[in-house]
Amino acid sequence: MSELELVSKNRCFGGEVRKYAHSSAATKCRMTFNIYLPDAAISGGERVPVLYFLSGLTCNEDNMITKGGALPYMSQHRIALVTPDTSPRNAGVEGEDDDWELGTGAGFYVDATEDPWRTNYNMYSYVQLELQQLINDNFSVDYSRTSIFGHSMGGHGALVLALRNPGHYKSVSAFAPICHPTTSNWGRKQFAAYLGSNESDWVEYDATELLKVYDGPELPILVDQGDGDQFYSSKQLQPSHLVISAECNKRSVKLETRMQPGYDHSYWFIQTFMEDHIEFHAKNLCK
Amino acid sequence: MSELELVSKNRCFGGEVRKYAHSSAATKCRMTFNIYLPDAAISGGERVPVLYFLSGLTCNEDNMITKGGALPYMSQHRIALVTPDTSPRNAGVEGEDDDWELGTGAGFYVDATEDPWRTNYNMYSYVQLELQQLINDNFSVDYSRTSIFGHSMGGHGALVLALRNPGHYKSVSAFAPICHPTTSNWGRKQFAAYLGSNESDWVEYDATELLKVYDGPELPILVDQGDGDQFYSSKQLQPSHLVISAECNKRSVKLETRMQPGYDHSYWFIQTFMEDHIEFHAKNLCK
Repeated sequence: MSELELVSKNRCFGGEVRKYAHSSAATKCRMTFNIYLPDAAISGGERVPVLYFLSGLTCNEDNMITKGGALPYMSQHRIALVTPDTSPRNAGVEGEDDDWELGTGAGFYVDATEDPWRTNYNMYSYVQLELQQLINDNFSVDYSRTSIFGHSMGGHGALVLALRNPGHYKSVSAFAPICHPTTSNWGRKQFAAYLGSNESDWVEYDATELLKVYDGPELPILVDQGDGDQFYSSKQLQPSHLVISAECNKRSVKLETRMQPGYDHSYWFIQTFMEDHIEFHAKNLCK
Repeated sequence: MSELELVSKNRCFGGEVRKYAHSSAATKCRMTFNIYLPDAAISGGERVPVLYFLSGLTCNEDNMITKGGALPYMSQHRIALVTPDTSPRNAGVEGEDDDWELGTGAGFYVDATEDPWRTNYNMYSYVQLELQQLINDNFSVDYSRTSIFGHSMGGHGALVLALRNPGHYKSVSAFAPICHPTTSNWGRKQFAAYLGSNESDWVEYDATELLKVYDGPELPILVDQGDGDQFYSSKQLQPSHLVISAECNKRSVKLETRMQPGYDHSYWFIQTFMEDHIEFHAKNLCK
């Protein structure tokens, strides 16, 4: 098991925000993440539920925990929050820093099969397996009460992880997620690079496609989308495709999608609806 | 009157966060600020109370509005929030970028009298006079219901502005303010540079000294200080000096100082107690 190196620790909302670094087997490089632990989990007397947040393109482990306004509600509900990075960094992959939509900051939560990405760009396994194992082994969290959410590329990641691991997550939510990446430029471009030209391999990373065939325990899903979001207008996000899939699969999926008038793609939008998302997860994690 | 240039606008918490730039008469350079306006102020039907936040060393107009977690409470109470920058920038003053404690990001909310600073480094007049006039003229805010708060150097600024302008602010609060700058290195160093060697000129920018002689309308003051704050330990902040002054002047001053165990000097500390501060101001602004 990889060793955790404590990078920083700050008291916040009756708990601690800590940044850790570790050497990752999945991505073959040093990875960092933040975790908020309410005091109940620090004293060790209580294993608290845990909520993962996956960030969007260009983000790192800091954006959401710094600007998302989540911590008062994590504290209130005594839930741990984990914010991973969005890709390997400084992995030495050729071209990793050439394009903001590919490589650094753009891992897309897939396990790459193509050169030059496949050695390091395994963010699906990193988040789903390695990181969660690490969190479970090192902190006083209750693995059986895990939920996940994310933004944009990270909303895609959260939906894909939840749909591919039936029963593991109690709930999933997303802010302006990329819903149908096999049909939008955000998705097609990266899947071609990371997964190769065989588009049938892409489907396992596409929430709209996965939702059609999902047959696990009923999965509560909440999606917020601003109608002033430029990436919504340019059809990178396509929440209506997710809605249609959910309509076809009402038995296993409980999807609520909300359009938010005037809101854009930014953290100003995310923070506005953060309380609702955490309430939604708390309801599912703490019942 | 200087023209306001809208730099950006984002919908947030049932209102808008806007960034503006303008040419400043007080600082002879381009200045930027953010303002959060609840919808009540945007539709123009209502002049809402207004709360100013002054940031600390190295910060700009973005730190608090991005990381402070204030906006849910501003929205709830329908109060506008204004976050100015902490100094002139790119003013062309010799040495302005050489030292993080002086010049850029370190205006200390004084009107400098010494070369090379005196042409541009007039943050006292900028915030107290020019900016507030600009806000009042351009937005639907109620000038008669103004309060102010700040952090560290900005906590010093907020206290000084409130104490020097009796009756103008309904309340003042601060996170880890520099309380007695004429006796701490944060203060003595900058006052010597900006105000010259005559220490009697410094007193008008020292909250502890001003508090002793304040005789305006009763001024409610709230101060939070973390006991894990390295700058508290190194005696840059000295909240006990403020407490002693307040004890000597109970007639005019209602000071509440709270020590917060384990909290440091960061925005993790600030956001934890942000709701309390806004509730405090709302109580005084909306009564």
